[in-house]
Amino acid sequence: MTDRHPAPDLLPATEALPRRRFIGSAALAGLGLAACGQKPETAAPVSPAAPASATPVAHAAASATHLKPGELDTYYGLWSGGHTGDMRVLGLPSGREILRIPCFVPDALVGWGITNESKKIMGTKADGSLRYTVADTHHTHASYKDGNYDGRYAWINDKINSRVARIRLDYFVCDKITPLPHVQGFHGIFPDKRDPVDEKINYTTRVFCGGEFATPLPNAGSEDGSTYRSLFSCVDAETMEVRWQVLIDGNCDLVATSYDGKLAATNQYNTEMGARYEDMMSAERDACLFFHIARIEAAVKAGRFKTIGSSKVPVVDGTRQANADPKTALTAYVSIPKNPHGVNASPDQKYFICAGKLSPTVTVIELAKVLAWFDGQLDKPDAAIAAEVEVGLGPLHTAFDGRGNAYTTLFLDSQVVKWNIAQAIAFHGGDKNAKYVVDRLDVQFQPGHINGSQSETIAADGKYLAVGCKFSKDRFLPVGPLHPENEQIIDMSGDKMVLLADHPVRGEPHDFIIFKRDLVKPRQVYALDDFPLAVKDAKDSSITRNGRKVLVKMTSQAPSFSMREFKVRKGDEVTLILTNLDKVEDLTHGFAIPGHNVNFIVNPQETASVTFTAGEPGVYWCYCTHFCHALHLEMRTRMIVEA
Amino acid sequence: MTDRHPAPDLLPATEALPRRRFIGSAALAGLGLAACGQKPETAAPVSPAAPASATPVAHAAASATHLKPGELDTYYGLWSGGHTGDMRVLGLPSGREILRIPCFVPDALVGWGITNESKKIMGTKADGSLRYTVADTHHTHASYKDGNYDGRYAWINDKINSRVARIRLDYFVCDKITPLPHVQGFHGIFPDKRDPVDEKINYTTRVFCGGEFATPLPNAGSEDGSTYRSLFSCVDAETMEVRWQVLIDGNCDLVATSYDGKLAATNQYNTEMGARYEDMMSAERDACLFFHIARIEAAVKAGRFKTIGSSKVPVVDGTRQANADPKTALTAYVSIPKNPHGVNASPDQKYFICAGKLSPTVTVIELAKVLAWFDGQLDKPDAAIAAEVEVGLGPLHTAFDGRGNAYTTLFLDSQVVKWNIAQAIAFHGGDKNAKYVVDRLDVQFQPGHINGSQSETIAADGKYLAVGCKFSKDRFLPVGPLHPENEQIIDMSGDKMVLLADHPVRGEPHDFIIFKRDLVKPRQVYALDDFPLAVKDAKDSSITRNGRKVLVKMTSQAPSFSMREFKVRKGDEVTLILTNLDKVEDLTHGFAIPGHNVNFIVNPQETASVTFTAGEPGVYWCYCTHFCHALHLEMRTRMIVEA
Repeated sequence: MTDRHPAPDLLPATEALPRRRFIGSAALAGLGLAACGQKPETAAPVSPAAPASATPVAHAAASATHLKPGELDTYYGLWSGGHTGDMRVLGLPSGREILRIPCFVPDALVGWGITNESKKIMGTKADGSLRYTVADTHHTHASYKDGNYDGRYAWINDKINSRVARIRLDYFVCDKITPLPHVQGFHGIFPDKRDPVDEKINYTTRVFCGGEFATPLPNAGSEDGSTYRSLFSCVDAETMEVRWQVLIDGNCDLVATSYDGKLAATNQYNTEMGARYEDMMSAERDACLFFHIARIEAAVKAGRFKTIGSSKVPVVDGTRQANADPKTALTAYVSIPKNPHGVNASPDQKYFICAGKLSPTVTVIELAKVLAWFDGQLDKPDAAIAAEVEVGLGPLHTAFDGRGNAYTTLFLDSQVVKWNIAQAIAFHGGDKNAKYVVDRLDVQFQPGHINGSQSETIAADGKYLAVGCKFSKDRFLPVGPLHPENEQIIDMSGDKMVLLADHPVRGEPHDFIIFKRDLVKPRQVYALDDFPLAVKDAKDSSITRNGRKVLVKMTSQAPSFSMREFKVRKGDEVTLILTNLDKVEDLTHGFAIPGHNVNFIVNPQETASVTFTAGEPGVYWCYCTHFCHALHLEMRTRMIVEA
Repeated sequence: MTDRHPAPDLLPATEALPRRRFIGSAALAGLGLAACGQKPETAAPVSPAAPASATPVAHAAASATHLKPGELDTYYGLWSGGHTGDMRVLGLPSGREILRIPCFVPDALVGWGITNESKKIMGTKADGSLRYTVADTHHTHASYKDGNYDGRYAWINDKINSRVARIRLDYFVCDKITPLPHVQGFHGIFPDKRDPVDEKINYTTRVFCGGEFATPLPNAGSEDGSTYRSLFSCVDAETMEVRWQVLIDGNCDLVATSYDGKLAATNQYNTEMGARYEDMMSAERDACLFFHIARIEAAVKAGRFKTIGSSKVPVVDGTRQANADPKTALTAYVSIPKNPHGVNASPDQKYFICAGKLSPTVTVIELAKVLAWFDGQLDKPDAAIAAEVEVGLGPLHTAFDGRGNAYTTLFLDSQVVKWNIAQAIAFHGGDKNAKYVVDRLDVQFQPGHINGSQSETIAADGKYLAVGCKFSKDRFLPVGPLHPENEQIIDMSGDKMVLLADHPVRGEPHDFIIFKRDLVKPRQVYALDDFPLAVKDAKDSSITRNGRKVLVKMTSQAPSFSMREFKVRKGDEVTLILTNLDKVEDLTHGFAIPGHNVNFIVNPQETASVTFTAGEPGVYWCYCTHFCHALHLEMRTRMIVEA
């Protein structure tokens, strides 16, 4: 909090913006076109504090993102994969995609959804087939220690089927997937940064998950939307079990957490609980909803919860009505102009920033004041609003440079606006000479998420910004009706932002984080003991029959499999365990069986297994699908299926 | 043919290389390590014609591949997607991936394998589920006209399940998939370049497909490998039906075609018909097998064929024994040293180049002489060998610059060798002063496929080379045990090759082609009439019940679906047809249903349909998954499932 911040009782927060500043129904009629780069004629006036538009494109500086052959990137990026249901690992500043980590959706390269090990993580139906093969990942965040990433885990959401996946950052693989009970449209996700009570727990132990779509609870199909409710969920970072849920008014969009571990926050764009889009935007203000974690957990411990349907997860009451008394409230609803999108915690640990989406504003909420409200020191949660200033049309997400500036995407203006938080507070406090807008940069086009290097940590370093533009239009060679999206890299180290490079990306990535490469310590080769089924020596290869079940144990070592052929009978249920005995980094083998829908890989010292039914009698050449050796083509074994 | 080429009868082709020049069993014991970048100590001597190793890395030139923001690439690249079963579209020289075109494997972004339209193309089992969800694409080539690409089609193979897919290059989508009967390990693929008989047909009408794994025919499971045979298949480019097959001795690896349309060729690495890798490399020479297309089709027309099992495809006899008389032969077997890999037709239309793999040689075969043998003018096919020269260890694939030079990958040496074809012929003809090796460039590491801009057309322009390196080792930030592969871009315009950039790629791409961007004319928006099921007006939205079958017709137009809710009953078989009425380029919508494994997209003016069983009673928020508008999050409809 700065000295220039006005006293809370002087802040007419809910009346801070006149109605005409919102994007009304008339303007919205033009948004379909606006989404394609044409600005609506009814655009709200630009903030008086905004300087002239400046959009330098780097020419000399552009090659900053081009690494010489063999040069390594200096940052990792973890990117949500959108509909592909995976997490993507990028190197920055080059923007090169180094890995895709399959999570919710099968992946034919690694055999995710084919091997028994991956099917167990993904979840199957009674017949053993995968429960889901589609997903929609939006947000990914990693575990913290002392306010910075600690390289243990990352988490990612599936919006369609309300599941959260965990990625191990030693092997860069998904190891757990948890469904959230009674949640539809699981959207925002964020880990806590330390424990709200125990000072010694200075690292992530909880993951918070926002439910966007309200439904009947339990969901029995009522048509009356006024009975629908949303849930906010807490998942244990280690066990990946759902610890508790909070019943709320309105919905959950994005999620953020405070550095002190005390609060989680979610912005709400549909406090109206509307079932149609017109109803969802009828109110002039929605909210940013704060959760008091220690009180919630105390309530659970004290048994002040209910359960829903067959779920055993404790559900506490976080509705407005039940939390009117600040001294006991589990939740605080701070009002935010019209359909806000995005909530982000500033690296100075002081503020939460909410963007207005249908309002041209950003709202700065002061953490200390929210806590003060919970302590009964403020008369209303809105008194925690430190600033509410105009930045441009369609503000969505905000990144930080660690130097007091924020960078917000303007969806409708197709810009990134750089603004100074302290100056915005001063302007809001009455200093009309405060120039809070520092710079604007045109981006191509309709930006959604934005993030900066280390932006959501106390170590925000202000070097690179990446911005996910939803429309690429003519920025890349035409490839038919499905355009890539355009992720752009921006140099944010100077006063003015400089656009460095365009990168086409397969839709539809959303959120991402960027951090220094020394924060993770990947392991490049597995240990045989990581796998209980490991076939530790080629001599242990065997084929065993138990009725119609056949177990085949095999090893791979370039350029051969340990068994040159194996015989099964039509209709047998065959389980094949394959251990890759090659120890050399990067020496992966594949194993494909024609006609049996089997293909998977085994990385060095990895073991995987598949179970399938032997088909028609015949010779089936099983072959290595992952180039391994000069005799790779010759690396085969025969499965002979007998009648 | 050059004047310096020796007379055929003076050419001791099959004895041209002494045994010691091959990589023997002793050396192979070291190949596992060799594959990881360490060179075997038993390396064959470098050709006396080789200059000193020169491996310049571009520093100033490197930024040639970095485009300024907004700049377009000048070349398209079509890349096989390997295990991901798709085709990738890249821009060159930037190396950026613009699109993935799903073919054989489901794709959760577009709903490939989810929509009824895509399932019909992919193939389903009796219960309506997908027959296969894994694949292994290796080679992709596009349709020709007058010796250059004409932008109509591209084709790609699935090695695991022996299927060929066609891509329409107007919309960049897969429109047909054809399984090859009685083929296992379908590997090489190449379209013809004109008709062998009809001069007026100066464009592609056939696609040739090589079967790599020999099996019993029909495949009844015999263990005796000596009875196994392989098939070479011809698919009609328009109907995508299999026209004919050829029974051969040995196997098919890669495929190439002559510019005059008369011949197709495949290299054979296993003329021994071995079932174990030691047996597959027992012979000193294998072969490049040529197919005389006009004669094969005359034989089919004359009824000189058999059929196999239940397949109705005519199969002609292309074995050695049946084709001893050149005047009537359908096939010609030209011998090539030990386990060759790769066959490529030079852009001067004169030669086929086969690389030795286990022999350090490349073999140059003269098309005119192969035709001369078929005309009875040469006593043996090997007389068509114009050169057989050493280039380095593990030669695999060859590209061309249109200036008489060839560029061959050396898997074991981790190099690209640039060599001059005319000089190689001179050297082979006895001119020991002919310096056929022009340059060598270290690549990182173990290169497989290579191709140059326009390399496999008469318009080869010698600007850019791309090389697919199978191992990336330490070239990118570590991401756990599964390394990306490394596709490198090389400037081939000067005397010396210059390495420009490293690109990590998701395994396991293989072959690719690179062509000028003006050769395709993509269409960016569909036409409503392209889809028989199109719902052409929001007013035509409807829900119709026929017993337990329910048909829902809906449209999308940002930011809403034409129906705000629809009701079905638990257990109903629901077919939902969705037409995207938005006409603006790049305005794609998605449609996801929680809990029902439904997610797909509709591009502008596209129609797609899905069929699913309504689940448990409840409210299911169907939402747009593809960011479309400022009110994208609000773009939903409710499916209310009643008991």
